[in-house]
Amino acid sequence: MWRDLDPIGRSASSGGYFRQPFGSAERECHAWFLEQCAARGLEVESDGNGNTIGWWRTGEGQGVLTGSHLDSVLDGGAYDGPLGVVSSFAAIDLLRDRGFVPQRPLGVGAFVEEEGSRFGLACLGSRLMTGAISPAAAQELRDRDGVPLPDAMAASGLDPSLGPGRLLEGVGVFVELHVEQGRDLVDRGAAIGVASEIWPHGRYRFDFTGEANHAGTTRMEDRHDPMLTYAMTAMAANEQARASGERATFGRIEAVPNGTNAVPSRVTAWLDARCATDDSLEKLVTEIGRMGHDRAGRDGTGLSVTAESVSARVGFDPDLAGRLADGHDGGAWPIIPTQAGHDAGILSAAGIPTAMLFVRNPTGVSHSPAEAAETADCLAGVEALATSLERLAGEGATE
Amino acid sequence: MWRDLDPIGRSASSGGYFRQPFGSAERECHAWFLEQCAARGLEVESDGNGNTIGWWRTGEGQGVLTGSHLDSVLDGGAYDGPLGVVSSFAAIDLLRDRGFVPQRPLGVGAFVEEEGSRFGLACLGSRLMTGAISPAAAQELRDRDGVPLPDAMAASGLDPSLGPGRLLEGVGVFVELHVEQGRDLVDRGAAIGVASEIWPHGRYRFDFTGEANHAGTTRMEDRHDPMLTYAMTAMAANEQARASGERATFGRIEAVPNGTNAVPSRVTAWLDARCATDDSLEKLVTEIGRMGHDRAGRDGTGLSVTAESVSARVGFDPDLAGRLADGHDGGAWPIIPTQAGHDAGILSAAGIPTAMLFVRNPTGVSHSPAEAAETADCLAGVEALATSLERLAGEGATE
Repeated sequence: MWRDLDPIGRSASSGGYFRQPFGSAERECHAWFLEQCAARGLEVESDGNGNTIGWWRTGEGQGVLTGSHLDSVLDGGAYDGPLGVVSSFAAIDLLRDRGFVPQRPLGVGAFVEEEGSRFGLACLGSRLMTGAISPAAAQELRDRDGVPLPDAMAASGLDPSLGPGRLLEGVGVFVELHVEQGRDLVDRGAAIGVASEIWPHGRYRFDFTGEANHAGTTRMEDRHDPMLTYAMTAMAANEQARASGERATFGRIEAVPNGTNAVPSRVTAWLDARCATDDSLEKLVTEIGRMGHDRAGRDGTGLSVTAESVSARVGFDPDLAGRLADGHDGGAWPIIPTQAGHDAGILSAAGIPTAMLFVRNPTGVSHSPAEAAETADCLAGVEALATSLERLAGEGATE
Repeated sequence: MWRDLDPIGRSASSGGYFRQPFGSAERECHAWFLEQCAARGLEVESDGNGNTIGWWRTGEGQGVLTGSHLDSVLDGGAYDGPLGVVSSFAAIDLLRDRGFVPQRPLGVGAFVEEEGSRFGLACLGSRLMTGAISPAAAQELRDRDGVPLPDAMAASGLDPSLGPGRLLEGVGVFVELHVEQGRDLVDRGAAIGVASEIWPHGRYRFDFTGEANHAGTTRMEDRHDPMLTYAMTAMAANEQARASGERATFGRIEAVPNGTNAVPSRVTAWLDARCATDDSLEKLVTEIGRMGHDRAGRDGTGLSVTAESVSARVGFDPDLAGRLADGHDGGAWPIIPTQAGHDAGILSAAGIPTAMLFVRNPTGVSHSPAEAAETADCLAGVEALATSLERLAGEGATE
């Protein structure tokens, strides 16, 4: 399966992946997903948001859902998302080889636009599915070229019908396997971990406005250059987060008119901020905004800060995490927090008992072509996911 | 004439102009230029670079050329370029009204890609025409979408044949009228000025390289974030130039992958730098590069600096400037330096006696939708240009 996905949407120059939702590469991954479901006799259900689940219809009662996402960040790694989907199919194969008979339906899901790389809102598919974002708000989302979400879906051959729908109706529990995006498991010497919580995090648009002017003839002291206000703010954000063990990143920027010989009239940059508590996140963003405003006052520029999405802390079901983590040869899997958002966080916040399994990442690098995982750890991940599904869908499972 | 040009390539949102060379708006301006030549019975000559001159074939010997450019920066003002072209036609009308009989041919020129807004090299048309850039080097130039210069020309219906050609063969002297791009004339209370020199200036590409990573899970201290190296360099450039009365601007930036939730792998930014002497320009750029490299060392990032174009100081012919500036009612026009590059600088460097007239700019703002000039000053500019052409093409002119 890994070999099928390897070339899709891969950049020849960087080796990274460009699988933006409803684009050709991501749709190719989705077609592959449907083939895998068909090859295993899974019954495919989709909603009007672009999310899909393939069900192994067996047993009775509420289903056990696993899966992840197939889209990538711009120039992303191979594992973030697809590892969870591939491992889900592999775990089903393993359970069938073992002759395991589930007492409940088992599903493999693929959720769209987890990364928010096209429409700016992470976990868009799972947010729509759970009602965490209204269809009306989602309809207004546009990509960088101004294409509205429904048009992008229609252009890829889908029939958009945004909103909760009934796709999650039969789901009693969700388990998402994901490559770790830090080095916690490396430090602990463990191949597999279970998530305790997701840090609160958000995306904030910083609009710095100034006065366009000639880069040659305008004296430095006569300028109102928003690029300088931005530069100071980006450095301040870094220092602030570093001092407090939090995260603050300006990774996306657009200057207007973006010409070499003109002082810009506007610089827009997006802050990604993450903290251990909701309060500390608010404090961090407020403080970065305050420093930006102070500098804007000195530069004669303007700054407005808009929260584009804020996700509160998600604490995963501790009993469920314990049930999955305990009782393995070689001891319990460590239970660790993550600073990364996931569809599992959205489903958990929507009241579905949810757990995450992490597979060790030797460098901790993610959202990068250099993202990696050892084959042995990936196989351990499949084994761990199969074991977890056995515990959740086997005899005596109560969830 | 002004009313004809007013709507072409104008942005409804900003009111600024987008007249990039060989694009539809700039070509529309060019078609207007040909109409104006035809209406006055001027004989049109073009070269294979996209430059055009309309000649009033009268008198004998070396011609007197005036004119300017029709392209704009991204989101530029109405006056930068077109004011010189419109004033040239208006000056010819005025001379004919006066019954002036030129002793030499009089030409109105329009040079392409003066701003370098599409192919990154300012004064591209005049550089090609004078041999200041080789055809082979120009053929390699590409716009932001990767379109090579010859393809862009061919797509707009031109038959590209890059290189000097014969368009300047009959030219004995060049006078370019231009809106001032600073406030020197405002400070002096003068409507018209004459240029003494153009500051040395250049464009330098700064490539900052780092390591892409997850914006949430990567600890601040584990990052190699090129955005921070860039931000420090942009602030240092500003402080350095401000302290020395020079100019250093980062107005154009591209981040890769430019995603909100990823530490960038690369940030490319372009420095526009201008100083009073060639030596001080080299010193300024070297110092900014040194500060960037120092910071890169601390950030664990890389920096390479590439000079994309460097224009040495241009001293305009002082005798010619004096001949135009002196002997007016109300006293001599002030002779002032400029920090802005112009086709006049390229022709002067190529050995053609050259002068520039500036028209007062009430705010000094340029390369911006807010660029302005009073109607009375524009009319004074037409008058001044006509007077200058009389002096250069009339009885007893020796140039």
